[in-house]
Amino acid sequence: MVGIIMGSQSDLAIMQQAADFLKSLEIPYELTVVSAHRTPERMFDYAKTAKNRGLKVIIAGAGGAAHLPGMVASCTTLPVIGVPILSSNSIDGWDSVLSILQMPSGIPVATVALNGATNAGILAAKIIGNSDENVAEKLQKYQDSLKDKVLGTVEEIKKNHPNSYDQ
Amino acid sequence: MVGIIMGSQSDLAIMQQAADFLKSLEIPYELTVVSAHRTPERMFDYAKTAKNRGLKVIIAGAGGAAHLPGMVASCTTLPVIGVPILSSNSIDGWDSVLSILQMPSGIPVATVALNGATNAGILAAKIIGNSDENVAEKLQKYQDSLKDKVLGTVEEIKKNHPNSYDQ
Amino acid sequence: MVGIIMGSQSDLAIMQQAADFLKSLEIPYELTVVSAHRTPERMFDYAKTAKNRGLKVIIAGAGGAAHLPGMVASCTTLPVIGVPILSSNSIDGWDSVLSILQMPSGIPVATVALNGATNAGILAAKIIGNSDENVAEKLQKYQDSLKDKVLGTVEEIKKNHPNSYDQ
Amino acid sequence: MVGIIMGSQSDLAIMQQAADFLKSLEIPYELTVVSAHRTPERMFDYAKTAKNRGLKVIIAGAGGAAHLPGMVASCTTLPVIGVPILSSNSIDGWDSVLSILQMPSGIPVATVALNGATNAGILAAKIIGNSDENVAEKLQKYQDSLKDKVLGTVEEIKKNHPNSYDQ
Amino acid sequence: MVGIIMGSQSDLAIMQQAADFLKSLEIPYELTVVSAHRTPERMFDYAKTAKNRGLKVIIAGAGGAAHLPGMVASCTTLPVIGVPILSSNSIDGWDSVLSILQMPSGIPVATVALNGATNAGILAAKIIGNSDENVAEKLQKYQDSLKDKVLGTVEEIKKNHPNSYDQ
Amino acid sequence: MVGIIMGSQSDLAIMQQAADFLKSLEIPYELTVVSAHRTPERMFDYAKTAKNRGLKVIIAGAGGAAHLPGMVASCTTLPVIGVPILSSNSIDGWDSVLSILQMPSGIPVATVALNGATNAGILAAKIIGNSDENVAEKLQKYQDSLKDKVLGTVEEIKKNHPNSYDQ
Amino acid sequence: MVGIIMGSQSDLAIMQQAADFLKSLEIPYELTVVSAHRTPERMFDYAKTAKNRGLKVIIAGAGGAAHLPGMVASCTTLPVIGVPILSSNSIDGWDSVLSILQMPSGIPVATVALNGATNAGILAAKIIGNSDENVAEKLQKYQDSLKDKVLGTVEEIKKNHPNSYDQ
Amino acid sequence: MVGIIMGSQSDLAIMQQAADFLKSLEIPYELTVVSAHRTPERMFDYAKTAKNRGLKVIIAGAGGAAHLPGMVASCTTLPVIGVPILSSNSIDGWDSVLSILQMPSGIPVATVALNGATNAGILAAKIIGNSDENVAEKLQKYQDSLKDKVLGTVEEIKKNHPNSYDQ
Repeated sequence: MVGIIMGSQSDLAIMQQAADFLKSLEIPYELTVVSAHRTPERMFDYAKTAKNRGLKVIIAGAGGAAHLPGMVASCTTLPVIGVPILSSNSIDGWDSVLSILQMPSGIPVATVALNGATNAGILAAKIIGNSDENVAEKLQKYQDSLKDKVLGTVEEIKKNHPNSYDQ
Repeated sequence: MVGIIMGSQSDLAIMQQAADFLKSLEIPYELTVVSAHRTPERMFDYAKTAKNRGLKVIIAGAGGAAHLPGMVASCTTLPVIGVPILSSNSIDGWDSVLSILQMPSGIPVATVALNGATNAGILAAKIIGNSDENVAEKLQKYQDSLKDKVLGTVEEIKKNHPNSYDQ
Repeated sequence: MVGIIMGSQSDLAIMQQAADFLKSLEIPYELTVVSAHRTPERMFDYAKTAKNRGLKVIIAGAGGAAHLPGMVASCTTLPVIGVPILSSNSIDGWDSVLSILQMPSGIPVATVALNGATNAGILAAKIIGNSDENVAEKLQKYQDSLKDKVLGTVEEIKKNHPNSYDQ
Repeated sequence: MVGIIMGSQSDLAIMQQAADFLKSLEIPYELTVVSAHRTPERMFDYAKTAKNRGLKVIIAGAGGAAHLPGMVASCTTLPVIGVPILSSNSIDGWDSVLSILQMPSGIPVATVALNGATNAGILAAKIIGNSDENVAEKLQKYQDSLKDKVLGTVEEIKKNHPNSYDQ
Repeated sequence: MVGIIMGSQSDLAIMQQAADFLKSLEIPYELTVVSAHRTPERMFDYAKTAKNRGLKVIIAGAGGAAHLPGMVASCTTLPVIGVPILSSNSIDGWDSVLSILQMPSGIPVATVALNGATNAGILAAKIIGNSDENVAEKLQKYQDSLKDKVLGTVEEIKKNHPNSYDQ
Repeated sequence: MVGIIMGSQSDLAIMQQAADFLKSLEIPYELTVVSAHRTPERMFDYAKTAKNRGLKVIIAGAGGAAHLPGMVASCTTLPVIGVPILSSNSIDGWDSVLSILQMPSGIPVATVALNGATNAGILAAKIIGNSDENVAEKLQKYQDSLKDKVLGTVEEIKKNHPNSYDQ
Repeated sequence: MVGIIMGSQSDLAIMQQAADFLKSLEIPYELTVVSAHRTPERMFDYAKTAKNRGLKVIIAGAGGAAHLPGMVASCTTLPVIGVPILSSNSIDGWDSVLSILQMPSGIPVATVALNGATNAGILAAKIIGNSDENVAEKLQKYQDSLKDKVLGTVEEIKKNHPNSYDQ
Repeated sequence: MVGIIMGSQSDLAIMQQAADFLKSLEIPYELTVVSAHRTPERMFDYAKTAKNRGLKVIIAGAGGAAHLPGMVASCTTLPVIGVPILSSNSIDGWDSVLSILQMPSGIPVATVALNGATNAGILAAKIIGNSDENVAEKLQKYQDSLKDKVLGTVEEIKKNHPNSYDQ
């Protein structure tokens, strides 16, 4: 249901996190490399066939002058989520962030934070959860688990630090 | 189906564009002001009741230290689209862009370009189009119309400029 | 008298410095984790009960899209000091600095330098020193000790470098 | 009780807003020009005599390489609030923001947003409200008035836009 | 011999300057609109047929998340010159500059300054001048004319200002 | 046919990549150090004699306030390709990028990405390929090899990740 | 004694301010246009003859990729003061500032603020004042006059604003 | 003749380079720590007595919100050279660069590159060389030695790389 693509194999360590999140919610996904600049035909074809292959959302990650998310968005009506990646020779990530975020009117890319592939996975799940109550419930549980995790650290910190609130 | 909120009435000129796009696709929406900093209870309540009131997507726009999109996202499982707005006394829009985009792992905001409210509307429609083929078809028509508009300018420019391609 | 909160346990190494300063001046403090995005209700409740629990100042530190200081400030009349923290995947700290600093008119956050938790502690002490002459005197001594420390390095450097001034 | 100073008469239009807020809360203030670079002795003397003249807080605004807030902070134990000002020939305000915000450990300046003089006034009031319940109550009323103002715009916008929430 | 393309008709005022320079050197050119995002097939086809249609160089200008120059470069072995354009809602031009400049290894774009369409025209002429001595000579004359223009202003300024050098 | 110069021996590790690419395409090149600031006469003379020595393109790399590419361009009609280099004490590469990119009208430098020396080599080959069909063919093969490399990683990733597209 | 040069006649409005300051102190100066990129020989010759023509300091102003100050510094042992100028198509002045400031080790340029030509004139006077007590005295008077000007605004502001300090 | 001061002992490794250069030219210097924020009286006194103690130039280095160079300049008619230093918790050096460079009209600081203490030493020597022909000659020799060093690397690189120019 979710297609995860990236511009280069070197992006895999980051983009894997989107796959991991989807797997944890039992949302089917596919994952591969599609380079806007080195395999433009593959990119076009991937984007144009995505909907008919049953995809609901595409997550695209890329670094530097990151054209993959925006170009894929130009070839499909599916929502496209863009993940800016801090690659080597990047100028602190600004190139990737701005290349993905600042799309012209008409062709949006839903951009998440630098290296924010987990959030891209969550966003894809939220979109799917819109018409799948089962996923929506799992998301609510996930969001609750974040809270529990914070409360766990509260307990831990309480051992060493005074705190009038958590009594 | 889509909730459009903004931090201040001064954001209305921009955020109206999201409403206009949704209206053009006959997607029901609501629009109001919800300030994270001046009406925090209203923000919390709006976000927490959103799903039960039938909303599928929330579009939130704000300028400066823009906390509205991220805070709304923390209180709902609905997908939240963030629109950075170039407000007065902003530092060239960087404050709004980074406050919305750079969300921590667990709570994504689907960020669009600075002042990109039309794209936020399109993205909301894409999300709804996921489970509503009628909307998906309208989106395809809209995307085709963008192409036609470009081809119209091609014709116009051809009058004054040589062009071996469009013959 | 001073509440020190942070968005994540990973901020503790920095935020501890605020606690250390307050301890050195014998100003009572509490310290815990309050996440704006993962525990929004906890954040609201913490902020709203702060004054009645006897707090005079709140120090809030967070990284990335750092909404904690501003959101806490929106729920209390206590002065809130914000500490931008350089977290992983931050864009060089700019996201945290701008998310905390650029608050809209009406809801100020007293922002200190990136990772400047010690200065947040000092600022809290200065605020308390306003109505507590004992603290004010300790602050004067602390400020004098900074001078003594510099003069110590002057002596050390004098051994290897000529200097017509300190004779 | 509050000293408002600025580096140049050209900063008056902005800094006046701090005075206006304090006046609206009936908090006594003084306002004058003190230039770090053109009247360094005046700056030193102003800062050193501030506490004995009865000041509780100093608000200092300056543009460009803005040294006034930090230098004043180095000569007093009073809390100093810094207002970065967007002056002519500034590089988009970054110079003023960074010169005020990035103080070294030991000498904090409570920095507010670019041109955020109103917020500086509010912050000063919050500090004074710490030991003056009368001011604290007025601050609560002010914060409530911000909410009322937002709710007013909600009503206005409701006339032209659907809204399932405010019914 | 030179193809000048731009992402939108609104870029014409800038991109016209490249055409004007080429015309002044009697280098044949064509000029049209090709949008990477709104007419992706047109872009692909334009790029792939460019060499066979006799083009030697392609100049591509675009604003915001500017993908046109890089995507065209991915579909041709011709040299591609990219012109970042300061469009409305751009973040001071940084988005366009970085989207064009920071291409990954393998697919270069010869980037010129923000709005530097004249320089793009000159660069195209230099490339053509490589195998066309007639163009190379005209370029030398152009470069000499720049010098003459400066010397003209020297004369003018000499009337009002002392100058020991130009006597 | 291609002159590769750099401002300092410390740039050699990067600039070597341009030479390596040209060697792989059997395009003759020369490589040396020419410092704009430490050997200005050498720079002038190098640039002025370049065309007569048979060079077709000059690739110039430099870091910090990088004047070499622009100054060489001012002394020749040959196309000059500039490579910004991230040197020590650079401000994240911005100094080098802007010093090379933002040339005034009349004197273009074809700028590539930060540390993008390979792309500079490719660009030089593209320019030479304009009048040398042999080089053009090799470039096409190189561009195809990039595609093959991506497809190789596709196969590798397929082993561990589902993918409905590549079947 | 002081040579004032600029890259283009369009810089004259700013650079005139350096001349005006020197004139007010009766320090002889010359002023002309020397373009690093359009008249490189003129630049070299100007710099190399400067000392023998009796110049003590050179002030060089330029915008964009501003190579003039650094290149002049590479051809003379005279101190060179660089004035970054905010020209059209500049990226907010960053290009000019960084091109002038970030000179490599060995060839310094004394850089002043963006558009800071008056300060360049003062700096030149300070350098000359080093061996000319007459100039040094005039500088002291100028510095005193800055103070008097501030005190004048103090008086003016006192009419409308309370001020416990200036009594 | 030259006073070298720095805001903190941690700046010594960088500032030592200014001393080393002056020593190599046999120009007398003194070196010590003077903190604008921790020892403001010492800073004032140092600056005010500098001229009478025989100093001709002051070199001041500092990191973060670097007020030392500008404040010293406000208390003396001597030329002041500012060295921005990349300290820990700096935002990539921007804070130090802008705090030193962007001085208001009337009080210049001759700013050099980030960590550019050697260049500060050279600049000081150039200023002294203005009225000391002996120093001027040594500077010429130093500038020549830079050239020789480059030519040395030319020879070295020639062993492995073709080069039609240096034959």
